[in-house]
Amino acid sequence: MNPKIEAARAALGEVRSGMKLGLGTGTTAAEFVRLLGEALRARTLTAIRCTCTSEQTAAQARHEAIPVFPLHELAPLDLVVDGADEIDDGLRMIKGRGGALLREKIVEIVEQQAARFIVIADESKVVSRLGVSRLPVEVTPFALEVLQRRFEAMGIDPLLRMREGTPLVTDEGNRIFDVLVPATEDIATLVDTIRDHAGVVETGFFPHEATEAVIASAGGIRWMRR
Amino acid sequence: MNPKIEAARAALGEVRSGMKLGLGTGTTAAEFVRLLGEALRARTLTAIRCTCTSEQTAAQARHEAIPVFPLHELAPLDLVVDGADEIDDGLRMIKGRGGALLREKIVEIVEQQAARFIVIADESKVVSRLGVSRLPVEVTPFALEVLQRRFEAMGIDPLLRMREGTPLVTDEGNRIFDVLVPATEDIATLVDTIRDHAGVVETGFFPHEATEAVIASAGGIRWMRR
Repeated sequence: MNPKIEAARAALGEVRSGMKLGLGTGTTAAEFVRLLGEALRARTLTAIRCTCTSEQTAAQARHEAIPVFPLHELAPLDLVVDGADEIDDGLRMIKGRGGALLREKIVEIVEQQAARFIVIADESKVVSRLGVSRLPVEVTPFALEVLQRRFEAMGIDPLLRMREGTPLVTDEGNRIFDVLVPATEDIATLVDTIRDHAGVVETGFFPHEATEAVIASAGGIRWMRR
Repeated sequence: MNPKIEAARAALGEVRSGMKLGLGTGTTAAEFVRLLGEALRARTLTAIRCTCTSEQTAAQARHEAIPVFPLHELAPLDLVVDGADEIDDGLRMIKGRGGALLREKIVEIVEQQAARFIVIADESKVVSRLGVSRLPVEVTPFALEVLQRRFEAMGIDPLLRMREGTPLVTDEGNRIFDVLVPATEDIATLVDTIRDHAGVVETGFFPHEATEAVIASAGGIRWMRR
């Protein structure tokens, strides 16, 4: 049993024909997109319209023959399904290992109050304290060196994310620093401080976007709700 | 007498040989760059190094044979000189009519605590309440339509800034909405609300960056200090 597939399958059980969906980015979200494509081809679901949080997901969705639309043509969305890098028991998340944090956040704020946002994850993503690994911070290229110095002075050890030997460029043309979340510091306070810097476009901290989570493990599926 | 030139000349009087300067953007800042170029050629000032808040200013500076460096090579700066669209008696400003708000803010936060930031302006820019004209809001293209709808729902009438018939693209590849500041609303609160939206990169509200202002009118020069 693959927990990522089981979590994706549980989320698919919440999809109804005619819904407008937001599709996330990453390996778990990709399982959901694949299962959704199967359901559309089997016609167990019909008239689904989707918007995507990355070019990568859009390419997969088109490959699966899922109808893809620009976000503004679909908003408000009925349901967003996405993975997370870390999730705590208050449904706060760190996202962005896939590099799509900005678009993910834009999709998920759309009519936030109306939409359901289901996080799908395996049990290893559930943490007692966010920041076990690192927090992604998306920055505008012009501010790269200046912010690097600032973050170093803050003691959060910024690592410029690389891909194939060069700095990763996001879909929006930005760069990503992965920073430490010091154990002594509350992540929400840290994020406020980071966001106060001009040139910071977004962070991977999602404090209140998720409405529920489906967590899969060898023992089965469990739902977390806000 | 041209007030823009007089304000620029007064700011130039604060420049000492060997200083590291930040150069602003816009018609008044351009007068400062021109006078600085004259002073360097006359050798009344020497060993000045500069960084620029826009490609436009960098082009002018190079034309004036002013040595230009990337921001991170110069930081911390000794002095930033820039114009403003509006300034109130608390030295709070609206900037960005020139479209360079993001880089301006990045330059001006660099070692904010150490640098002097002199605003140069003519008397017409001094207002009793910020928001006489509009507040620029820089947004990432992916969020354009979503944010337009949100801002319309907020009643702040977003106007997409155009240039030669197409949406203006900033140096960072973003777009700009010019929004209303409702008379009933405090601009600082409004900006907090606006910045809470993913996809908003920066606004033209500069609440605490300026350390002083030199205001020129037909009656002469006056200094404002924080």
